[in-house]
Formats: sequence, structure tokens, C-alpha cells
Amino acid sequence: MQARYSHSGVFIALEGGEGAGKSTHAKLLEQWLSDLGHDVVLTREPGGTAVGAALRAILLDHETGTLAPLTEALVYAADRAEHVEALIRPALAQGSVVITDRYVDSTLAYQGAGRSLDAADLQQLAQIATGGLRPHLTVVLDIDPVDGLGRAGDHDRIEAEPLDFHERVREHFLALAGADPEHYLVVPATGDVDAIHATIRGAVAPLLPVGAP
Amino acid sequence: MQARYSHSGVFIALEGGEGAGKSTHAKLLEQWLSDLGHDVVLTREPGGTAVGAALRAILLDHETGTLAPLTEALVYAADRAEHVEALIRPALAQGSVVITDRYVDSTLAYQGAGRSLDAADLQQLAQIATGGLRPHLTVVLDIDPVDGLGRAGDHDRIEAEPLDFHERVREHFLALAGADPEHYLVVPATGDVDAIHATIRGAVAPLLPVGAP
Repeated sequence: MQARYSHSGVFIALEGGEGAGKSTHAKLLEQWLSDLGHDVVLTREPGGTAVGAALRAILLDHETGTLAPLTEALVYAADRAEHVEALIRPALAQGSVVITDRYVDSTLAYQGAGRSLDAADLQQLAQIATGGLRPHLTVVLDIDPVDGLGRAGDHDRIEAEPLDFHERVREHFLALAGADPEHYLVVPATGDVDAIHATIRGAVAPLLPVGAP
Repeated sequence: MQARYSHSGVFIALEGGEGAGKSTHAKLLEQWLSDLGHDVVLTREPGGTAVGAALRAILLDHETGTLAPLTEALVYAADRAEHVEALIRPALAQGSVVITDRYVDSTLAYQGAGRSLDAADLQQLAQIATGGLRPHLTVVLDIDPVDGLGRAGDHDRIEAEPLDFHERVREHFLALAGADPEHYLVVPATGDVDAIHATIRGAVAPLLPVGAP
């Protein structure tokens, strides 16, 4: 149903709760890979494309008010479909390393565990939106929501959900990682930033093309 | 996965190409039913809810530029999920007659036949977005796209597609109606407005609650 590109790059997702340091570690990872000479694309969901930015505003602005949980999941899926088709697949086809700040697991955790939408429906939506494209590695930065929300500053529409919502989200990220340890790295997010970065480097290094660039 | 309401009202969808007179006939139908004493909710897709209005702007404004076909289908699905959950189901639960200007069949025709997305994926999306809610009657106002586009005036993002796109859309509406004649009424849209309205009234009348209101 959509163009399939050859898939010679490396695809890495960073996941985790609010205030876990995803954007910090995405940037450190980007810098390290760039210094090694790789083409790196650093992106995020929602909002990695032009239309995604408009969808991100709908999802996160308080002025949107209440959305049906299913509506929210479908807007995330629309953002993801554009992201995969217009940005991620083409970049991978060119051999780039793509680092995304959030991907499918965030929908499974926030809309599934957080909002209690049907898991099978969410898996089906993810399959349709991504055409089955999965990361080579998902890094889960794990943090107690009490600590994470304290770090996050002003809270957007999702961050403003109650604590038990964020507890369910955290447990779901850990469950996804536990079920597929070959494709996940779980790192406690409260340690020293340089030490966490070194741990992430250690998991990414084996995925990089031998002899390249 | 979402609240199910009892379903005592009557649900009518108007479908068809650009310039077929859907909004004219939706209003005439609303007026007739109101005069009979029914509670009537006249609505449309995309844009029947507050968030739907924001999604409608993304879908129809030229400034959106190119969207991946799948992204477009998912934004329509998000609009539809909110429409069903926040407006259509509650109105039906109160016994209203709901008239919608476009519904699922427009996605099957425009994104499926028009944009060539996978029909099974679109059916799955429609099932998730609507929870399986189908109209009691779908009225297809059938018009040659050459005539319809001539009537439609300034063209939005979808209307600006080439003629063969609109030809495929028309054929798909007719195919959907032909496959399920009990739930469809096809009316040639080029005739006299009063005569078309009378034909629609004749198909709607048997669906109205006996003895009500």
C-alpha cells in the first residue's frame, strides 16, 4: 500500500516517560554518531514533519480540550504515517542513522496502558501506519514519574494527566522491553548523564555498518 | 474499546462526488424531518466537531501541500472517531435522526479508489474509528464529475485532483451501493431538486419510528 524502500540504515527509537532525558540523550547520540562520520537524522513524534507539526499542536495544546482516546490514537497514527513515509524510510534508504524521540511504543504505552484503549486495535493501527517498520533498537529511559514530572516543567495536555496514568505508562514501557530484550535497552534515567550516554553508545555501536563510513 | 450507546435513533448518510448537491439535500431533509416533529442533527465529515474543524483545515487547505495518502486516510479516521463518539452516538441514543454529509464510504471511495490505498486497511480503519456503526440508509447522489466539478466553484485540495480520480470515486460509490441495495438509495443528481428530494423522502419515511413523534 505504500512504497517500500531498501533498508540499509539504522533505526533507533528513544522512549520513556516525561522528564526522562530523551531529547538530551538523542542529541548526545546524534553528536557521537556525527563525529564518527555517519549521516544522522534526529527527529521526533509527534511533529517530525510539516503536517506533523500541525497535528502535534492539536495533540498537546490545552486549548484542544477533551479528545476521545481513540481520536487521540488516530491523530498519533496519522503523524506517524507521514513521518515514516516522508522522512524515516527515505533516510534509511540512503543509509542514514535515524534517531526518533518517541515512536510506536509511546502509543502503546500512553493510549493503550494510559487511556485503556484496546491493545489489538492499537497494534493494528501501528502496523497500518508504519507498514511494519520497527526500530533496530529501542532505548527506554526509565524514570519514576514523580521524579520525571518534577523535571518536566510546564505540563502539556498529556503531561497534565494524573500520576497513576504515568505509572501505567512506565510499567508498559518496561513490559514491552522485557518481552523483546534483543531489541531493547532499558537504562535507569536518574544516573550520571555521561554514564547513561556511554551505556547507550555501547548498545548502538554493534548496529553500525562495519567499515563505514 | 469505547462506550456503546443504545441505538434508538435513525442514522442517514449522504454521499457522492463534488457538486452533487449533498448539502442542499441534507438541509431539505432536515427541514422536512423537523416539520414532522423529529429531533434532527445535521452534521458533516470532515469537521463535525471542534477538533474535526482543525483536522478539516489540514485535509482541505491547499497550504497543507502534499500528504502521504495513508496520512490523509488516518486524519479522516481521527475526525470520524471523534464525530461518532462525541456527536453521532449520543444523538442516536437520544432518539434523534442524524444526517451526515459524508461518512465511511467517502474514505473508501476517495482514499481507496481515488488514491489506491489498500481496501482491507481502509475497512479495518473504518471499523476501528466507528466501532462498527453503520447508517440505516446511505443516499448516493450520483453525478458525472465533469458536471459536478463545474458546479463546485473554487476547488479545495481534494476537488483539485484530476478528472480520472473523480471518475474512480464515482464508480466506487456506485459499486458500494450495488453491493448492498437494502441500505442504499442511488439518485441521479442532475434532475429537478424537488423531485430528488421527494425520492429521498420516500426512502427515509419507512425508517422513521412508527407513531413518533
